[in-house]
Amino acid sequence: MVYDLIVLGGGPGGYRAAELASQAGFKTVLVEKDRLGGTCLNRGCIPTKAYYADAVGKLGPVDKMWAKKEAVVSKLQKGIATLMDRCSVDVVKGIGTLGDLSGEEKELKISTDQGEVVLKGRRLIIAVGAMSKPLSFPGSDLEGVIGGDWAVTDQGMWDQSMADQVSSVAVVGAGVIAVELAGILKDLGKEVTLLKHSDQILRRCDEDVKKKVRQAVKKKKIATVDYFRIKEAVKEDGRLKVKGEAEGKDLEVLCDRLILAASMVPILEGYGLEASGVAYTDQGISVDRNMMTSKEGVYAIGDCTGGMMLAHLAEYQALSAVEHMAGREYYVDPAKVPSCIFFDPEIAVVGLTEEEAVAKGHDTVVGRVFFVANGMALAMDRSDGFVKVVADRADGRILGVHIVGPEAATLISEAALAIAKDMTVKEVAYTVHPHPTLSECFKDALFRILEDTSHS
Amino acid sequence: MVYDLIVLGGGPGGYRAAELASQAGFKTVLVEKDRLGGTCLNRGCIPTKAYYADAVGKLGPVDKMWAKKEAVVSKLQKGIATLMDRCSVDVVKGIGTLGDLSGEEKELKISTDQGEVVLKGRRLIIAVGAMSKPLSFPGSDLEGVIGGDWAVTDQGMWDQSMADQVSSVAVVGAGVIAVELAGILKDLGKEVTLLKHSDQILRRCDEDVKKKVRQAVKKKKIATVDYFRIKEAVKEDGRLKVKGEAEGKDLEVLCDRLILAASMVPILEGYGLEASGVAYTDQGISVDRNMMTSKEGVYAIGDCTGGMMLAHLAEYQALSAVEHMAGREYYVDPAKVPSCIFFDPEIAVVGLTEEEAVAKGHDTVVGRVFFVANGMALAMDRSDGFVKVVADRADGRILGVHIVGPEAATLISEAALAIAKDMTVKEVAYTVHPHPTLSECFKDALFRILEDTSHS
Repeated sequence: MVYDLIVLGGGPGGYRAAELASQAGFKTVLVEKDRLGGTCLNRGCIPTKAYYADAVGKLGPVDKMWAKKEAVVSKLQKGIATLMDRCSVDVVKGIGTLGDLSGEEKELKISTDQGEVVLKGRRLIIAVGAMSKPLSFPGSDLEGVIGGDWAVTDQGMWDQSMADQVSSVAVVGAGVIAVELAGILKDLGKEVTLLKHSDQILRRCDEDVKKKVRQAVKKKKIATVDYFRIKEAVKEDGRLKVKGEAEGKDLEVLCDRLILAASMVPILEGYGLEASGVAYTDQGISVDRNMMTSKEGVYAIGDCTGGMMLAHLAEYQALSAVEHMAGREYYVDPAKVPSCIFFDPEIAVVGLTEEEAVAKGHDTVVGRVFFVANGMALAMDRSDGFVKVVADRADGRILGVHIVGPEAATLISEAALAIAKDMTVKEVAYTVHPHPTLSECFKDALFRILEDTSHS
Repeated sequence: MVYDLIVLGGGPGGYRAAELASQAGFKTVLVEKDRLGGTCLNRGCIPTKAYYADAVGKLGPVDKMWAKKEAVVSKLQKGIATLMDRCSVDVVKGIGTLGDLSGEEKELKISTDQGEVVLKGRRLIIAVGAMSKPLSFPGSDLEGVIGGDWAVTDQGMWDQSMADQVSSVAVVGAGVIAVELAGILKDLGKEVTLLKHSDQILRRCDEDVKKKVRQAVKKKKIATVDYFRIKEAVKEDGRLKVKGEAEGKDLEVLCDRLILAASMVPILEGYGLEASGVAYTDQGISVDRNMMTSKEGVYAIGDCTGGMMLAHLAEYQALSAVEHMAGREYYVDPAKVPSCIFFDPEIAVVGLTEEEAVAKGHDTVVGRVFFVANGMALAMDRSDGFVKVVADRADGRILGVHIVGPEAATLISEAALAIAKDMTVKEVAYTVHPHPTLSECFKDALFRILEDTSHS
């Protein structure tokens, strides 16, 4: 048979694409070599948030944290399987290799337990994801050296019944993954050292957010090393000794685990991309705004296309691709995609940073309100942090919202909607926000801007 | 001197009006007989949320709950005083009585500790609030019988160092105040009985929300009595015996406190309203959509105008009034005002219930998604509840959003914005929502509607 759509990769982009395609009436097959849910569900977003909820948010007992994580992941995996079943999506377990993509019928060769099969489909979506950038140094293959994309599966590090196995962790990186893991591990009582490539932390965030994170890292007593270059790792008395250089000086860090979380890179090997004729660079597979690759009818979505590498971006790129297949159009503007960083305090941002807005030539106006002035935050005794709104002084449009504080990840959705719809500060401020809630802090930041601009 | 504006009442409507008026350049005086912040800050929203956070949300130790509440209220009171000062609003402590309101200069007589003064202003806002409906029955003046609007200030009931004083509480009512107090008191370990006027609970909510609340009340082992009519209360061995009738049978409830939280009524006496010529009914002071009363230049906002009696509605009615004074226009549509009920699980709603939408003649379509399918809710182990979206099948407009579950009060702000801006299901669903967050449950409910309507 010839499928209407073959999806290669069962992560959040891939299975969402399969679901949407089935709803659009396309007979669809989903190919996954490992487990449904991809990095996000099995080794990323979900496991870290399960740990975060217990270790940082104190929502559950940390001594049961590992078991809870396993249960949550398993439940969601089953949920995806059920969803695929309900959508009549065929799911094939196997390693896919791109075959002939030139004709009307695209080919994907699958190596399964039962042998080789070739799937044919009128369209194909590549959604193979990303992985931690492999770092090669002497000792990088030692036990206890682990990529950021697999770190959460290391039971010895997270299962508190084995807490004596790991008392100290070094994390290479200063991005979202490194910061989230460092925060959780620290709250589990481990010694944590962030080995940073530069003096930056969460490089792409607004300067006020970065300042707050630097303070929080210090307050949490997470050790940091700037401008670190790793040289080698050696085993010493059952522990790891990480050797490197920082600002011209030799440095050694003793730890039980070394997490390599410097950056994620798109997966471009192992599935025949090189020979397929699909255009790509080392930044990812090249796509147009419909997520179509250089080959007609072949799409790529999610982390393998590079860029922000967020599960929700992949999901909406899936929507773009399927809408295009169905003869409609829908584009995601990456500049309006929110992102969340589950640290303590929580961080969520959408749109332009103040620095980006200025660089783009906006005459900016900023509203900044601290949660310590918010009744709900005080009532919750969770008043650390702020909401910062960046707007254009001339037309009043909201350009960026940067939240550090309680329930930031939930709060950002209103801001994301406002930015997606190009709303002005006044439009959103004049919408009734309920009291007493944390979202009043956003509303108050908007009114702060109205006060500042009412005289101009 | 003649003020540009006199505000009578220092609650959330009154002080917000004073702040906005000062920003608009009006020389303003605020008159308050008691404490700044009104019922909301001193005896309502804020104290209950401080208790709620600790007793229900487990965010802090309940044995320090009373002291925390006191500290939070005091901090916010000081915040308002500072705000008034920064805005150069004169604050006068005293009991105001409406004087001559006919001329260009309105008069308000103030009885203060230092004697009588008369304030003159070009405009006047009445923002005197509401109070628990007084119930008169034999024993209604006994110690331990307390109005819903003052219940949170009864230290013996809330200070856990005095927990032995109050082991059992009866609450007359089934509205927001009754349900919130019952939930918190139950989680503090007290026996709680809801004495309800009918078989309803949270009467104005969507039927699905009510069903969920009924289940939650039962699960929490809060006792309920339907169709209760109170006859009298007597003291017996230092406790209260509440006597009444329910469905034709006599009934007695023994308790340490009896909270009368049946309903709130606008305050219409004690400040010369009767003689002022300002039109009112027993439902509240009559106003137009600019919040102006029957007297030119005299406005009324907040609970004393009846209706929903929500602090945030009062705040935005203040905005309406001040905008009108400044020659601009802004209206609040009460049908689009969100409200939150801090129970376990938390409840937040905005717009029409399904029943209201049907009654208004909409061909409705409903999307319902449970938090048990939401990754973040599972990770938090807070997966009880759902998001229900009611939309119009023909034009796709979102009519109502009803959330029961984790962080509902924070989640509702996005829905409130969508409804305020008359957005369609598709517009909001196609806006990128971050993963993993609770707001995906709202997004998923929207997509559920798109699936259901895509074939029509």
